[in-house]
Amino acid sequence: MVRKNHRFTLAARPVGMPRPTDFAFEEHDLPVLGDGELLVKVRYISLDPAMRGWMNEGKSYIRPIAIGELMRAGAIGSVIESKHPQFAVGSHVTGMLGLQEYAVSNGDGLTPVDPSRVPLPVMLSTLGAPGLTAYFGLLDVGKPVAGQTVVVSGAAGAVGSVVGQIARIHGCRAVGIAGGAAKCGYLRELGFDAAIDYKAGDIKAALREHCPKGIDVFFDNVGGDILDAALTQLAPRARVVICGAISQYNNTTPVKGPANYLSLLVNRASMTGMVIFDYAARFPAAVAEMAQWMAAGKLRSREDIVQGLEQFPQALLKLFTGENHGKLMLEVA
Amino acid sequence: MVRKNHRFTLAARPVGMPRPTDFAFEEHDLPVLGDGELLVKVRYISLDPAMRGWMNEGKSYIRPIAIGELMRAGAIGSVIESKHPQFAVGSHVTGMLGLQEYAVSNGDGLTPVDPSRVPLPVMLSTLGAPGLTAYFGLLDVGKPVAGQTVVVSGAAGAVGSVVGQIARIHGCRAVGIAGGAAKCGYLRELGFDAAIDYKAGDIKAALREHCPKGIDVFFDNVGGDILDAALTQLAPRARVVICGAISQYNNTTPVKGPANYLSLLVNRASMTGMVIFDYAARFPAAVAEMAQWMAAGKLRSREDIVQGLEQFPQALLKLFTGENHGKLMLEVA
Repeated sequence: MVRKNHRFTLAARPVGMPRPTDFAFEEHDLPVLGDGELLVKVRYISLDPAMRGWMNEGKSYIRPIAIGELMRAGAIGSVIESKHPQFAVGSHVTGMLGLQEYAVSNGDGLTPVDPSRVPLPVMLSTLGAPGLTAYFGLLDVGKPVAGQTVVVSGAAGAVGSVVGQIARIHGCRAVGIAGGAAKCGYLRELGFDAAIDYKAGDIKAALREHCPKGIDVFFDNVGGDILDAALTQLAPRARVVICGAISQYNNTTPVKGPANYLSLLVNRASMTGMVIFDYAARFPAAVAEMAQWMAAGKLRSREDIVQGLEQFPQALLKLFTGENHGKLMLEVA
Repeated sequence: MVRKNHRFTLAARPVGMPRPTDFAFEEHDLPVLGDGELLVKVRYISLDPAMRGWMNEGKSYIRPIAIGELMRAGAIGSVIESKHPQFAVGSHVTGMLGLQEYAVSNGDGLTPVDPSRVPLPVMLSTLGAPGLTAYFGLLDVGKPVAGQTVVVSGAAGAVGSVVGQIARIHGCRAVGIAGGAAKCGYLRELGFDAAIDYKAGDIKAALREHCPKGIDVFFDNVGGDILDAALTQLAPRARVVICGAISQYNNTTPVKGPANYLSLLVNRASMTGMVIFDYAARFPAAVAEMAQWMAAGKLRSREDIVQGLEQFPQALLKLFTGENHGKLMLEVA
């Protein structure tokens, strides 16, 4: 019996916000497994702001998705057939399985996961790439010191919410910037010391109020006006971590550069970019530490799970309109 | 006999390019020296891009010059009267003596200099604040490694010319960006591996040509389009040193932020500001090392000396129009 697979490929490079016609939903027959291969039934697919960048042409930290190619995505699934000695049927794996129902793999880049310890969605969220991005971006690049003030933008998102909680665990004051009262309420639930609603008024004044000694670490997921506001409130020797710039990803005009970048000079501060792949060798230790924090109730995770692979084009937009609450992912039926 | 002093004070905060009416040229009687004071005849006054920032209101790394206050300036002079045990008549000193003929001082912030070793103008130039800015900005912030590519903007200026020469001394490839064929010829004379004339065409293409492996250290004195072009050509883990942004100092519109700052993310690169005052404890060692390089013919200095204190308002503009060749200073009659 031939098994059918369904998947999304990139049909056109989006201009501005991605449209449904930028993707093609395709059906095809799965090949018969060769020796050393395994078949994974994809269960949960991570939707991330970074996907928008992968759809663009041009040099980046990873090659662009080609037109007609399977949409790249991190995911988690169950092994349902295996001719690979290291992956048993019934086990679970995570990796870049793509936006599809089934993935055939030779095992490269797959990591086994144990669903008896943590629910599968959490492994794509706080114990997956977003959590690891928060962990290494904050601790290795931001280098917070107990007593300092850490501000994070996109604070209710999958990365930002973990940044603030790890800042608290490390004895820092955590201030989150997010859009709307509901998200700000969520930040306070998570233990953030202050939450700033960027839709509610003057971000600069709010930062002055909540960071009276200035910002020691600014972890930026957003860019644009929020980055510019934060730059005006840096403490001496502040570290700005450039993790992303979701406000700029769908621009059809040039990116808005940070007009206040000379604050780096005045404050002897730095702005540093980071890409999570560089820390791969340390992922297991970081996941172990974060799992301990979760078990101790110090680190909480929230997922926003959309049902159905075919919902991908609409679901992705929730990231850019700010509609998701927690780590956005698809559950594949 | 009462001695007359002449000086420039700040009459108005400039809007855009400073105008002669932004300054007042004043004559006043010098006071009689008190115990612990000395009188310095100012000989050479340093004119620096940073002066433009000091004329603006607002928080910076140093307090703004007040309206009616003596224009702040680094200078060098001769002690002509002294009631201070540590400063003998006939000796020479450097410090923030200001834009005036004579300075009365209690000795705070003054450093003795020995004109028998190096001509006085060089002590305001390569062995003064500009040379020290180049030294610490390149070596401490830029952290160049032998074999890497160092690019400097404003390369024919007092700071930039020293950055390129120190890069060469440390075994790096030095590429300078300057305006016009004469300045580019000067860079080649100084031993730069390549000189890019930003007035002659496509800076990005020229950087690609002269930095085939990308830019490891970008030392920026200029900001604006040149910073943006350099950001597109960063090597992985590049360091961008923000020393100044002369293209933006006379803006009447907001500063142009670097639109390509997300290159920091893609390349895991950093952008760090620096202020020379932070390195004061290490100035003597740095001056000693640079003096050795000068004596060995590895480090050359050039000064552009304008005669007459009263020339200040016009002379200052040479910095912003790019007309100066070498470190700009006034010689006081």
